Amino acid sequence: MKLLPTLSEVYNQASYPITGHAKRNVQVLKEALASYDGELDSDVYGSGAVIEPFQERMAKLLGKPAAVFFPSGTMAQQIALRIWSDGAGSKKVAYHPLCHLEIHEKDGLKELHHLEPILLADTTRPVRLADVVGMEEPVACVLLELPQREIGGQLPPYEELVEISAHCREKGIKLHLDGARLFEALPYYGVAADELCSLFDSVYISFYKGLGGIAGAVLAGEYDFTEESKVWKRRHGGDLISLYPYILSAEYYMERRMPRMAQYYHEAQELAALYNACSTITTVPQVPVSNMFHVHSALPKEVLEPILIAVIEETGFGFTHVLRDKDDGGSYYEVSIGDRYAELPKEKLRDAFRMLDERVRAAAE
Amino acid sequence: MKLLPTLSEVYNQASYPITGHAKRNVQVLKEALASYDGELDSDVYGSGAVIEPFQERMAKLLGKPAAVFFPSGTMAQQIALRIWSDGAGSKKVAYHPLCHLEIHEKDGLKELHHLEPILLADTTRPVRLADVVGMEEPVACVLLELPQREIGGQLPPYEELVEISAHCREKGIKLHLDGARLFEALPYYGVAADELCSLFDSVYISFYKGLGGIAGAVLAGEYDFTEESKVWKRRHGGDLISLYPYILSAEYYMERRMPRMAQYYHEAQELAALYNACSTITTVPQVPVSNMFHVHSALPKEVLEPILIAVIEETGFGFTHVLRDKDDGGSYYEVSIGDRYAELPKEKLRDAFRMLDERVRAAAE
Repeated sequence: MKLLPTLSEVYNQASYPITGHAKRNVQVLKEALASYDGELDSDVYGSGAVIEPFQERMAKLLGKPAAVFFPSGTMAQQIALRIWSDGAGSKKVAYHPLCHLEIHEKDGLKELHHLEPILLADTTRPVRLADVVGMEEPVACVLLELPQREIGGQLPPYEELVEISAHCREKGIKLHLDGARLFEALPYYGVAADELCSLFDSVYISFYKGLGGIAGAVLAGEYDFTEESKVWKRRHGGDLISLYPYILSAEYYMERRMPRMAQYYHEAQELAALYNACSTITTVPQVPVSNMFHVHSALPKEVLEPILIAVIEETGFGFTHVLRDKDDGGSYYEVSIGDRYAELPKEKLRDAFRMLDERVRAAAE
Repeated sequence: MKLLPTLSEVYNQASYPITGHAKRNVQVLKEALASYDGELDSDVYGSGAVIEPFQERMAKLLGKPAAVFFPSGTMAQQIALRIWSDGAGSKKVAYHPLCHLEIHEKDGLKELHHLEPILLADTTRPVRLADVVGMEEPVACVLLELPQREIGGQLPPYEELVEISAHCREKGIKLHLDGARLFEALPYYGVAADELCSLFDSVYISFYKGLGGIAGAVLAGEYDFTEESKVWKRRHGGDLISLYPYILSAEYYMERRMPRMAQYYHEAQELAALYNACSTITTVPQVPVSNMFHVHSALPKEVLEPILIAVIEETGFGFTHVLRDKDDGGSYYEVSIGDRYAELPKEKLRDAFRMLDERVRAAAE
C-alpha cells in the first residue's frame, strides 16, 4: 500500500515553491564564500578583519555607536535584557505574550537570567502605547518585536512607536527592539533603519530571516552596553573562535537582499490578495505590512491539508510545507516572501489559486 | 623611525611556522566544503542529515549512547555540569584551578548556573586520585581535563584514571571528561577513545584544537543526559538554525587528522628534545605526553623576546607568536604540533635551534 505524501513532502517536490528565497542547503554557503578570498584570515574570538569592520558597518547602519555579532538572537536578546535588568536593579522586563523569548527559548531568560517577564497586549495584536503606559509594576526594559512574527508580521503605527519611546525615556525604562525582521518592516514605515532604531536603546537584528544568511545576529547600542554584552556572550558560550561562516554569509546576502525589501513587501500584498479571494480564507493582516502574513482558514486542518496536498501536486505551486490547528477549529500557516516569488509564472499562479478556491469552496459546503 | 617588528608579526611572516596545522583563514572552510555536494540540505535546529548521523557517529566513537553537537565547548561543559548538579541536588562541582571554566569563561558557570567550583590539585600538576578522595564536601561532579592544556598537556597515569572513576562511581559522583584534546591524549595512553570515555559519565570534545576544524564541540553521554543538554543548548542560544559550517568542517578535518595523532605526539617529543638541548630552556612536560608542551625559559620575557624575534627573522622558523611572563621571573610559551611540523626542513630546523641556543646562552651569561 502506498502511503499518501505529506504536505511537507509535496512542498519539497513542488516546481514553484511560493515562499522564501531558495532551498536551505550547503550551496547557500558555498555561493557566499565564493566571493571571498581564501587568504582572508579568520576572526579570532571577536577580533580581526572579518568581524570588526562588519560590526562597525552594522552599528552605522543601525545608527548606534557599536554592534556585536552573535551566533543567535536567542543569545543576543537574553543578554540585552539581562544588562538592562542589572542596570535598573529590577528583574522585570515586559514583552508580548508571543515574544520569541516567551515561546521558543525553553525559558532561557528565566532559567539562566532569572528575569521576570510581564506580558503586554494579547495574542492577536501588537503592543500599543496603552499597554506600556498601563504597566503596573516598574520594569527595567520593554521589548518590542517589529514586525510581530507570530501574528502575521503586524506593526503598530509609527507615531505610536515614537510615543512609546518618549514614554519609556521619561520613565527611565529601556526600550529594546527585537528586529529579527527589522529590514522587512522599513518599507511600510517608510523610514531608514537608523531612524527607527533611534527610538530604541538597544537593537537586535537577524541575518537568516528576510536576509537569508546561514545564521547569526547583531546586537547594537551604546559602547558600554555592547562591551558588557561581549562578557555575557563569552559566558553563554557564544564567543566562538571563528564566526566567519555566519558573518561572511550575512554580509553577502544582506548586500543582495536588503535592497529588495520593498519588492517583497509589495509582492506579499499581491499574494495576500490572491488568498483573500479564496473562500474560507483570510490573511492576517488582511493587507500585509511587511514581507509576511498568516493564512487563516475556517476549514479544520484535516480538511484543508489534503486539499493543499492535491493542489500542490496538480499545479506544482508550493503553498506551504506545514499547516497548524487554530483554537477556533480552523487552521493556519505562515507565508513569507523572498526571492522565489518574483520568478513565479503569474498566470499559472492565478490558475492555482482558482483551483484552491474551488476545492475549499466545495469542502465548505 | 622604523618600529621593530613584534613577535607576532615575525611569526606571521615566517617561512616555516613550527606549530599548528595551517593558517586559520577562509580557505580552511572552502577546502572542507569542496568535498560536499551543494544540494546537501542544511540542518534545521538540530535535525537533518547533516547533524543527526554525525552525532550518532560521534556517540559511537566515544562509546556513549548519544551525542549532541554544540557551537562551543564553553556552552557544552557548563551545561554538562549544570545537569549533573541538578541531578545531584548540589551546586558543588570540582575541577583543576586552571580549568577552562575557571579561567577563560568570564565565570559563566557561576553567573549563569550559580555552581560552586571546588579547586583540585595545584597549578603545576594534574588532578590525582588523592585530590578526589580528599574532597571534603560532597560534590555533584568532578571534571578532568585530559590532557591538561594550561600545564603543557600533562596527563595522569591511566591506572589512576581507572581508580578515580571507580571512586566516583562508588561515591555517586559524576565524572565528566573535558576532552577538548581527547584524541591528542590517546597515543600516550594507548587506548581507544571509547575505552577512555567508558571511565566517564559525560564527555566533551572539541573540533578545532588538534583536529583543526573551524569551531564546534560534541557532548556525549546517556540518552537522558544528552536530551536534557539539548534543552539547555536552546536556553543558551546555541540551538542555531544551521550549524553545518562547523559540522562539515569537523567531519572533514577529523577524518584527515585523527589518524595523525600518534605522529604529532612523536613529533612533539622530537621537538621538545631540541628545546631541552638549549641553554635556560626546559619543556613541561620534559617528555611530552600529547602533541603539546610548554617551553619555559629562565630568561625574562624582555630578554627572550628580542632573541626569538631575531632568530625567527634570520632563520625563517616561526617558534611562537606569543611569549608570556612567568611568576618566577622567567618566561614561557605553548607549543602544539600539527600538520606543519612534518613539512619542516629538519636540518635547517636543527641549525635554527643551534642559533637559538647560542643566543640564549650568551644572554644568560
